[in-house]
Amino acid sequence: MADVLPEAFLRAVAEGFPADFLTREPSELQEYGRDWTRVHTPAPSAVAFPRTTEEVARLLALCDAHRVPVVPSGGRTGLAGGAVAARGELVLSLRRMTRMEPVELLGNTVRVQAGAVTEAVHQHCAEHGLTWPVDFASKGSSQVGGNIATNAGGVKVIRYGLTRQWVLGLQVVTAQGKVLELNGSLEKNNTGADLRQLFIGSEGTLGIITEATLKLTPLPGKQDVFLFAVPDVAAVLRLFREARRAPLLLSAYEFFTDKCLARVQRHRKLRSPFEAPSGCYVLMEAEGKDAAAVEEWLGSLFERGLVTDGTLAQSPSQASELWALRESISESLSATGLPHKNDVSLPVAGLEAFCSELDAVFRERYPDWEIALFGHIGDGNLHINIMKPEGMEKAEFLARTKQADPTMFELVRKHGGSISAEHGIGLLKKDYLSYSRSPAELEMLRTLKRALDPNNILNPGKIFDV
Amino acid sequence: MADVLPEAFLRAVAEGFPADFLTREPSELQEYGRDWTRVHTPAPSAVAFPRTTEEVARLLALCDAHRVPVVPSGGRTGLAGGAVAARGELVLSLRRMTRMEPVELLGNTVRVQAGAVTEAVHQHCAEHGLTWPVDFASKGSSQVGGNIATNAGGVKVIRYGLTRQWVLGLQVVTAQGKVLELNGSLEKNNTGADLRQLFIGSEGTLGIITEATLKLTPLPGKQDVFLFAVPDVAAVLRLFREARRAPLLLSAYEFFTDKCLARVQRHRKLRSPFEAPSGCYVLMEAEGKDAAAVEEWLGSLFERGLVTDGTLAQSPSQASELWALRESISESLSATGLPHKNDVSLPVAGLEAFCSELDAVFRERYPDWEIALFGHIGDGNLHINIMKPEGMEKAEFLARTKQADPTMFELVRKHGGSISAEHGIGLLKKDYLSYSRSPAELEMLRTLKRALDPNNILNPGKIFDV
Repeated sequence: MADVLPEAFLRAVAEGFPADFLTREPSELQEYGRDWTRVHTPAPSAVAFPRTTEEVARLLALCDAHRVPVVPSGGRTGLAGGAVAARGELVLSLRRMTRMEPVELLGNTVRVQAGAVTEAVHQHCAEHGLTWPVDFASKGSSQVGGNIATNAGGVKVIRYGLTRQWVLGLQVVTAQGKVLELNGSLEKNNTGADLRQLFIGSEGTLGIITEATLKLTPLPGKQDVFLFAVPDVAAVLRLFREARRAPLLLSAYEFFTDKCLARVQRHRKLRSPFEAPSGCYVLMEAEGKDAAAVEEWLGSLFERGLVTDGTLAQSPSQASELWALRESISESLSATGLPHKNDVSLPVAGLEAFCSELDAVFRERYPDWEIALFGHIGDGNLHINIMKPEGMEKAEFLARTKQADPTMFELVRKHGGSISAEHGIGLLKKDYLSYSRSPAELEMLRTLKRALDPNNILNPGKIFDV
Repeated sequence: MADVLPEAFLRAVAEGFPADFLTREPSELQEYGRDWTRVHTPAPSAVAFPRTTEEVARLLALCDAHRVPVVPSGGRTGLAGGAVAARGELVLSLRRMTRMEPVELLGNTVRVQAGAVTEAVHQHCAEHGLTWPVDFASKGSSQVGGNIATNAGGVKVIRYGLTRQWVLGLQVVTAQGKVLELNGSLEKNNTGADLRQLFIGSEGTLGIITEATLKLTPLPGKQDVFLFAVPDVAAVLRLFREARRAPLLLSAYEFFTDKCLARVQRHRKLRSPFEAPSGCYVLMEAEGKDAAAVEEWLGSLFERGLVTDGTLAQSPSQASELWALRESISESLSATGLPHKNDVSLPVAGLEAFCSELDAVFRERYPDWEIALFGHIGDGNLHINIMKPEGMEKAEFLARTKQADPTMFELVRKHGGSISAEHGIGLLKKDYLSYSRSPAELEMLRTLKRALDPNNILNPGKIFDV
């Protein structure tokens, strides 16, 4: 394990901070040095647990002076290695900064420290009939600061947009240990470039988010959950166009292929509500404005041949059963085989062509591979899972998928897509960044990084090398 | 008139661009050197009219090499002097770049050149039942590039948010003449800092927006228009809280005081629908989800004493009459007196205290002044108009309001507000920027400007001096 902490730095920390501020306990280093990826070996030199923004600011000023690299650490549920400390860095954990202020009911806002857990924020707001509509599977562990630093997506993006849209104010500590209070709790503030936006989605490479004023929205009304069977991706997209014009407010439009359903049925023993199998399935959740109009719309889908089968959940338990088909996919793929995962996005209009070209490429080059496709297709977001063929050695499979990724990313680029829709770049995807960002963009990203963090102490080596 | 165009630069332009590319015609210099403010004397050296991004890129590379300052110019409807060329700059007009591509109906997007007029975009999309929900009085002249460069607000922000939310992709030319294609038409793209956001709202000081992919939304359903009478600002805000929880989707929540109504009645001879006068009025526009529930909600407002009077327009012409009361304010203030205008925003929760303290300060220091307050109060946005007292000389009034502004801005700062809610900073407000941005923020803004535009050729002197 590399140790990059100079003695003078450690002395200054020991003198200037509480006794329990820093740990070098091996089990804690293991724990706080990694996220949900398991590719890199965690190897931080120490973990700091500040309680206040003032402590974060003093710590960063010291780190900058002593050139100590810092990895900010939230709930560590990331899937791209953005919070991994594998090179002797100091981990700055926000774990102790969990304060939530009372909900402000006139402005529909709440100010919280960055370490507040996403689900705790939901609970804090729900009693007032409000929510912070940033929602995904890991919300029980993920923290607000991490949500913002990765501009988190999730299952409600089609209705509510990304995390960026729900952040009114940010408190950020710069690489030099200065505290920025950005935008307070203002809806409108047209006073030069919006610095908030720089830090949202920059994975801790430009500043450390310590507090945020979150914008809230009323809890949604009763949701209808539908499952439709359609022949192929083209039909999924035709139905999507209709759904967006329908008398309802979409909150989810998710799709999966027959291969995903087969794995779910094999692993979870769940039943499909349909008699006949179909190429693709769509799980749609929506708030109907008018029950009669929704019924009429549903009928017209069958009449016009837009779906081959369909069902509307008649009870909350039926709704859960339908959702389970979609939500069990990831788990079922891992339980019944070895998936190699990618998380890409395309312009919605480019999805059909992309999927069919991807299919053709894989059919030709890797005819024995099973591709399990699913995702937030309403946002253009596809999860592409290549399943290891029975009988192929794991090492050979990993080598071959590594070889296959550039082919896929080339197609993503060709169709104007992104190699990382919502997981971020971190360490895992940095080698492929140029498939989604041009040389001119990369140059500007590096210029910004050098201007704001000239000593390269903030999450160095993440996203790109300076 | 200063002339900062070197001979070598002019020669290069003459050789490398079409004959009608540049004009130095005095009437054109007058026209293209100013926006809707009338404070500075327009004095550009020349106006360039590129037709393509490639021309913009070559021009900027030349400007950078020859240190020629450039003022980007859209529809010139700005109210802060952001598009004013008063120091011999080269004006870069986007007037010829008005191309709009066909509406993309699967993704609900449209790609346009920056010079497309806002209202033309609305018309282009309306035939498909879609709209780009950026809407304000000057939409018949303003251009998409200017809307984005100023992150325009307007009358629909409470429902749709600011312009920032409706920009999927941006094509930007940098100070060095490089073309950036940012984000294409992706909803999700988590691949490092989102450079789009830097250019949105930066008033042409960091790059020139040449094209954009706009996100569209279905045209709204039938709107109900209400007018309510309430005693004071506190009651306006109490009603706002109720309205946001009501069974309707707000698209406007505007308020004005009795002083505004009196001026409108004097000038436009419009009738108030109410018998008794009241301290404040609220114009509310909303899409009701359920007519019966809306009726019931309306009744409860009276029962609970939340309004002293109220009316719901029963026809489109009645709706227009109610809107006319609000929309005639600005014109009526100017027609019946001399207003000194400010456009500030506050956290919604701070509006009541701010208004009452502002009132107290003005009462004490300037007892003979009439303050006409109105604005998009649902967004925390107040238009504060100080009316020149009868009999006071104009010069004295202007001197005294100049003296009064810092007092008001001090109150804005105290309550966490912004000195420019939607108009921007440009030239008019740059002396007051420090009331809304801290020294650390200003330092970071300068760092960014120096990093991206080291020769300070892009709209120099706007927002702040480097």
